[in-house]
Amino acid sequence: MSDQLIIFDTTLRDGEQSPGASMTRDEKLRIARQLERLKVDVIEAGFAASSNGDFESVKTIADHIKDSTVCSLARANDRDIARSAEALKGANRARIHTFIATSPLHMEKKLRMTPEQVLEQAKLSVRFARNLIGDIEFSAEDGYRSELPFLARVVEAVIKEGATTINIPDTVGYAIPELYGNFIKTLREMVPNSDQAIWSVHCHNDLGMAVANSLAGVKIGGARQVECTINGLGERAGNCSLEEIVMAVKTRRDYFGLDVNIDTSQIVPASRMVSQTTGFVVQPNKAVVGANAFAHASGIHQDGVLKARDTYEIMRAEDVGWSANKIVLGKLSGRNAFKQRLQELGIEMESEGEINTAFAKFKELADRKSEIFDEDILALVSDESVTAAKEQYGFVSLAQHSETGERPRAKVVFTVDGKEFTGEAEGNGPVDASLKAIEQHVSSGAELLLYSVNAITTGSTESQGEVTVRLQHGGRVVNGVGSDPDIVVASAKAYLSALNKLHSKIERVSAQL
Amino acid sequence: MSDQLIIFDTTLRDGEQSPGASMTRDEKLRIARQLERLKVDVIEAGFAASSNGDFESVKTIADHIKDSTVCSLARANDRDIARSAEALKGANRARIHTFIATSPLHMEKKLRMTPEQVLEQAKLSVRFARNLIGDIEFSAEDGYRSELPFLARVVEAVIKEGATTINIPDTVGYAIPELYGNFIKTLREMVPNSDQAIWSVHCHNDLGMAVANSLAGVKIGGARQVECTINGLGERAGNCSLEEIVMAVKTRRDYFGLDVNIDTSQIVPASRMVSQTTGFVVQPNKAVVGANAFAHASGIHQDGVLKARDTYEIMRAEDVGWSANKIVLGKLSGRNAFKQRLQELGIEMESEGEINTAFAKFKELADRKSEIFDEDILALVSDESVTAAKEQYGFVSLAQHSETGERPRAKVVFTVDGKEFTGEAEGNGPVDASLKAIEQHVSSGAELLLYSVNAITTGSTESQGEVTVRLQHGGRVVNGVGSDPDIVVASAKAYLSALNKLHSKIERVSAQL
Repeated sequence: MSDQLIIFDTTLRDGEQSPGASMTRDEKLRIARQLERLKVDVIEAGFAASSNGDFESVKTIADHIKDSTVCSLARANDRDIARSAEALKGANRARIHTFIATSPLHMEKKLRMTPEQVLEQAKLSVRFARNLIGDIEFSAEDGYRSELPFLARVVEAVIKEGATTINIPDTVGYAIPELYGNFIKTLREMVPNSDQAIWSVHCHNDLGMAVANSLAGVKIGGARQVECTINGLGERAGNCSLEEIVMAVKTRRDYFGLDVNIDTSQIVPASRMVSQTTGFVVQPNKAVVGANAFAHASGIHQDGVLKARDTYEIMRAEDVGWSANKIVLGKLSGRNAFKQRLQELGIEMESEGEINTAFAKFKELADRKSEIFDEDILALVSDESVTAAKEQYGFVSLAQHSETGERPRAKVVFTVDGKEFTGEAEGNGPVDASLKAIEQHVSSGAELLLYSVNAITTGSTESQGEVTVRLQHGGRVVNGVGSDPDIVVASAKAYLSALNKLHSKIERVSAQL
Repeated sequence: MSDQLIIFDTTLRDGEQSPGASMTRDEKLRIARQLERLKVDVIEAGFAASSNGDFESVKTIADHIKDSTVCSLARANDRDIARSAEALKGANRARIHTFIATSPLHMEKKLRMTPEQVLEQAKLSVRFARNLIGDIEFSAEDGYRSELPFLARVVEAVIKEGATTINIPDTVGYAIPELYGNFIKTLREMVPNSDQAIWSVHCHNDLGMAVANSLAGVKIGGARQVECTINGLGERAGNCSLEEIVMAVKTRRDYFGLDVNIDTSQIVPASRMVSQTTGFVVQPNKAVVGANAFAHASGIHQDGVLKARDTYEIMRAEDVGWSANKIVLGKLSGRNAFKQRLQELGIEMESEGEINTAFAKFKELADRKSEIFDEDILALVSDESVTAAKEQYGFVSLAQHSETGERPRAKVVFTVDGKEFTGEAEGNGPVDASLKAIEQHVSSGAELLLYSVNAITTGSTESQGEVTVRLQHGGRVVNGVGSDPDIVVASAKAYLSALNKLHSKIERVSAQL
C-alpha cells in the first residue's frame, strides 16, 4: 500500500454549503490559489450542475489551477456528470466525483429507490463518467450507515466500471474511530477488486471526532485519501479539519508512517483567508489555527512556557505559518509595490481598472491607518465595491453620533443600482441606527441572525474592524462582510453586502455527503 | 466494572488557566452553580494554594455547592494540600487532587528531581492528603509520555497510600485514540491494586483528538472518569469538551454502554455562560454548542432539512438546551420579577444594595431595549460596576461622533478610584478614539491583542453588543468584557474592565496537567 496520504480539500464545496458561507466566484478562485500554494492534492471546486454560479466557479478554478487536481461533484446522473466534465474542460488534471446514497434510510426516504435501482444507477453513472474523464471518484452517501453486503456489491460494481477512488462518508457524524476504521477494513476485505481503487474517508464532526475517525479510517481501514476543509468549515459541526489531520499525520509520523504533500507554512494564511472570506470566526482554542493554539504566537510571553518550550509544545508555531505580523505597505508605497503584493497574495484582478480602484482604496486606507498588513489588503479586495462594480447596493458615506442620555442617530448615503439614497434613523446604538437608516429605504424584511466584529490585525487599536452580518429572508441565509477602521462604517458595508447576496436569487441544489 | 462514567469538570481550573480567561470569584461561583444544575459529578473549583484569590474562589464554591463534589488542585507538597483542605472545609463532598510529573522530560527539566525522589514525594503527599480528606485524586503530569514501568510503580504506591482516583493526563495533546486507550489498559494491567481506584483520563486537544482519546481511554482502557471543560476551554487548543464527550456517550450508548448523570438540557446555557464570562467565542461550526451545530436551531429552515430531519440529525437540539429565545422581562417588570429571574439563573447577589444597583441597570436597559432576554440579564450582572463597587476604573458616560471625511472623535468620562476624569481624543474610528480618550489619562502602556464583538441575542438589530478586549502588559494577559446596546460604549466598558484586571496584581502559580 502506498505511503502517500492524499489530501482532498472540499472547503469550496462541502464547506461552502454551510449556511451563510457562500462565496463569489472571485473569492473561490482566491481560496483555490491558496489551496494550490498549500499543495493540496485535490481541490473540490464545487458542484457544477447545482447552479450557473457554481458551474462558473468550477470552470474558473479549472482554468487557473495548474498543480492540484480540480474536482466537481455530480449526482449519479448523466446530466450532472456531463455538466461537470464541461466545467472541468480547461483543467490540467480533472476529477469527477459522483455520489448516490446507499443507506436504507436515505434510499427509502430521500431517493425513493430500491437498492437494485441504486446499484444500477451507480454503475451507469460511473460508466458514463469514465468515458469523459479518467479520474473518477464514487461516494456512497451515508455510507457508514449502509448495510455492508449491499455496500460491497455497489463498490465492487463501480470499481469494475472504472471508479478510481472510493469514498465512504460518515454523512451524519455518527462514527467512533474504532468502529469506523473496522467498517472500512471489513468493507475492503469484502470487495474482491478493492486494490484497484484508492479508498477515501469523509467524516463530519457532530460528536467532535471527525479527525480521529478519519485517521482510524486511514490506519485501521487502509484509506489513503482524506476529505477535509480549512478550519473544519462545513454544515452543522463541520467537516474534518485539514490543519488538524495534516499536523496529526506529520507530528505522529512514528505511528502513521505516511507522507503528505502539504506545505504546512501555508496553513495559517489559508485559515485566515477562509475565515475572512466567509465571516466564520475561528475560536481561540481551536487546534493549530486558533489564536491561543501556540502560547507564544498569541503574543503571550509567560516565563514558564518560554523556559522550556519543548516541555509543552509538540509542534512549532512557525511550521504552520504563525509569524509576527509584518508591516507590508505604508502610505508611501506606490502602485507597483501594491500590485506586486497583490500577486504575492494570489490575488489576480480582472483588469487594470480594477487594480486602479483597489489602489485608490488602498491609498485612502493608508491615509487613515499608518501600517498596512496583508490582512488589510485581503479585506480591501474582499470589499464588494472593488471587485464587483455591478452590485445592487453600494456604500457611499455615513455620519453618526451617540452620547450617553440621548438616542443614537445615523445618516447613511448608499446607492441602489447606481442611484444615491440617504436614510436617517435613530436606534439603540450607532450600529442599530445605521442599519435602520438603510432599512428605511430598502425594507428588505430580513432578520438579523448574527452580528460579530473582529479586529483584522492585532497589536494596536488602529486595527480595522471586520464586521460579519448574517441575514435570513425567505428561507435563505447569507453572510455579508465589511471592513473599515470605523466599525460603524464597516457594519453598514457588511449589511449592504449581505443585502446584495440576499437579492442575487441563487437557486441551487445542495448535496449531503 | 461500573457502568457509570464520572464527569469531572475543570472549566474553573484548567479552563481558567487559558490566557485571558481568568474569572472573578463571583463569576466562578455563578458558573459552579450552573455546573451543579448540569449535574456534573465533580467540580474542580481551582488551585487553592496558587493565590489568595484562588483560595477564596475554592472556599466560596465549597461553601455554596451541595450536589457536586468540590475539588481543589494541589501540588504534591504538604503546604498545597493543607491549603486545599482548608479551602474545602465547608464542602458537602470534598476532593483533593494532587499531582506530580512522571515523564523523564518533565522530571528532569521542570522538577529537577530523580524518579526515586518523585515516587517518594507522591507517596508522602497522598499519605498526608488522605489524613485530611477521604476522596483523593492523584495525577501523573505528562503521564502519557512517562515510562510504563516507573508510572506503574508510582500508581501502585499512591493507591496503597489511599488515592481513590488515578488520572493519567495527555498533558501536551500528543496521543492517538488507539495508543492512548492501550496505554491505560496496559498500565492498569501492570498495577496489582488497580481495582482499588477509579481511573481517569484528561486529554488536551492540540491535534484535535481530545474527545476521541478520552473515549478510547474509557472504552479500551477502562477509565470511568473523564476530565473536561465547557466549550473545550483551556490552554492552547484547550481540553476535552464536556458537551462532546457527554453527547457521544449518550448518542452511542449502543457502543459505550455507560450512564452519565448530566442533565443535557443545561448544556447550551452552560456554554453561553462560560463564553460570555470569559469572552472566548464559540465558533459556529463547533459541535453541539456552535450556532450552526443544529440546522434548525440556528434559525435556518431549509426545505430538505425539515422534510427529513432524522435523515441528517443524530441528536435533537432541544435535548442539549437549544430553544427559541424567550422574552423573559420587559420595561414593566418589577423588582420582584427581576429578583426571581436572577435566582432562577443561579445568580445570587451579596446584598440588597447590589440587587438595587442591578435592578436600576435593568430598568435603564429596558428603557432602551424593549425585549430583555436571559443573556441580557447575565451580561448585566457580569458588568463590573454592578458586582464590584471597589474596582479601580469605572465607566460614567461617553459621547462620540464619526462622519465620512472627518477624523472620528470621542469624549469619555470615567472614574479612577472614585474620582471622575474626562478624556477626549481623535482616532481611526469611534472605538479607537474612545480607547485613546481613556488612555490619555491612564497611560497603561498595554498592548491590544484582540478585539471582538458579538451580539448577545439574535433576531433583531436591537441586540446588545458584547465586546471583548484582550490586553497584554508586563507579561500578563487579561480579557475585559463589556456590554451595551451601543457598541462604542460597550468597547469603553470592556477596556476599563480589562484595565481593572490588569491592575489587580495577581501573582499565581500555573499548573500544567
